[in-house]
Amino acid sequence: MATDTRDRILQASASLFQRQGFTGTGVKQILAEAHAPFSSLYHFFPGGKDELGAETIRVSGAMFQRLVEAVFDAAPDVLTGISDCFAGAAETLRATDYADACPIATVALEVASTNEPLRLATADVFGDWITAATTRFTSAGVSEARARELAIAVVALLEGGFLLSRAAHSTEPMLAAGKAARAAVEAAL
Amino acid sequence: MATDTRDRILQASASLFQRQGFTGTGVKQILAEAHAPFSSLYHFFPGGKDELGAETIRVSGAMFQRLVEAVFDAAPDVLTGISDCFAGAAETLRATDYADACPIATVALEVASTNEPLRLATADVFGDWITAATTRFTSAGVSEARARELAIAVVALLEGGFLLSRAAHSTEPMLAAGKAARAAVEAAL
Repeated sequence: MATDTRDRILQASASLFQRQGFTGTGVKQILAEAHAPFSSLYHFFPGGKDELGAETIRVSGAMFQRLVEAVFDAAPDVLTGISDCFAGAAETLRATDYADACPIATVALEVASTNEPLRLATADVFGDWITAATTRFTSAGVSEARARELAIAVVALLEGGFLLSRAAHSTEPMLAAGKAARAAVEAAL
Repeated sequence: MATDTRDRILQASASLFQRQGFTGTGVKQILAEAHAPFSSLYHFFPGGKDELGAETIRVSGAMFQRLVEAVFDAAPDVLTGISDCFAGAAETLRATDYADACPIATVALEVASTNEPLRLATADVFGDWITAATTRFTSAGVSEARARELAIAVVALLEGGFLLSRAAHSTEPMLAAGKAARAAVEAAL
């Protein structure tokens, strides 16, 4: 079976986990959306739904990170990067009827107390995001001592913004979170 | 059937939804944990699991708000209130092996794109929290224009702190979010 079948399965599961969670998504639905035969699940993911879940978390977490890093790279400075990132998240939420948000938050909350291998996968992804933001803030002139705390706060604001905007079906929370994130980085520069 | 059966059902469902989500929690498990007969579900909640879910969101959301308001009321000023609130959340997370967190966030993300009545219940709860925080910040001297944005940012930081702390099994994210929340309020005073 070609590798693009594996990619299609991962894309379908990422999209379904984001919208309806890990528990609410059946393997059959994933394979149907991926136009993949049932045998392909165990061919590519011998550990079944749990292995597919962990790989989906890692792949979609890394993809989201590359997206955010590209926004920062395109911005003239780190403050503009922060504003662009939250404004882009708000616009994506609005354009997708508040469905396209953090690729792993729903699963992260579902598995935090129920599935240790999947919890560790979400912890690794958030850890990578925080490390990348810490490096970016240090390069922009924030002291090493403050950069990590600031990175955690900015990721927390983005995640809180996703949650409140999805619940309210409004961009207001994401935009308010973005203003607070920009102010926090500005104060630390 | 006595009203305390209804209360026990709501308490059991709140605890289970928080730890394993709405989709991952069956009605049978809720009734077993509540030591309630199966007939009591439709006696108290004729709309079944969805009605129980919406009522759980509203009741546990209001309970959490009272808890947070009590922390603020006991603090000498709003900045101490902010610090106490995030430190208390961090300590509760640690003491419960990172299970006892926001009572509605897991369900909110699960239902945001899949169950409109439940989404509206989560939106109402978050809206009440934001309104209460706005009033508190205005009373403390923050301008009306800034108080609502600030309230949204503080709730977003708390929610992001819950998510990142639960995923990492560490209090570090909640404490970093608390420092950022305190700094944001201080800057607005």
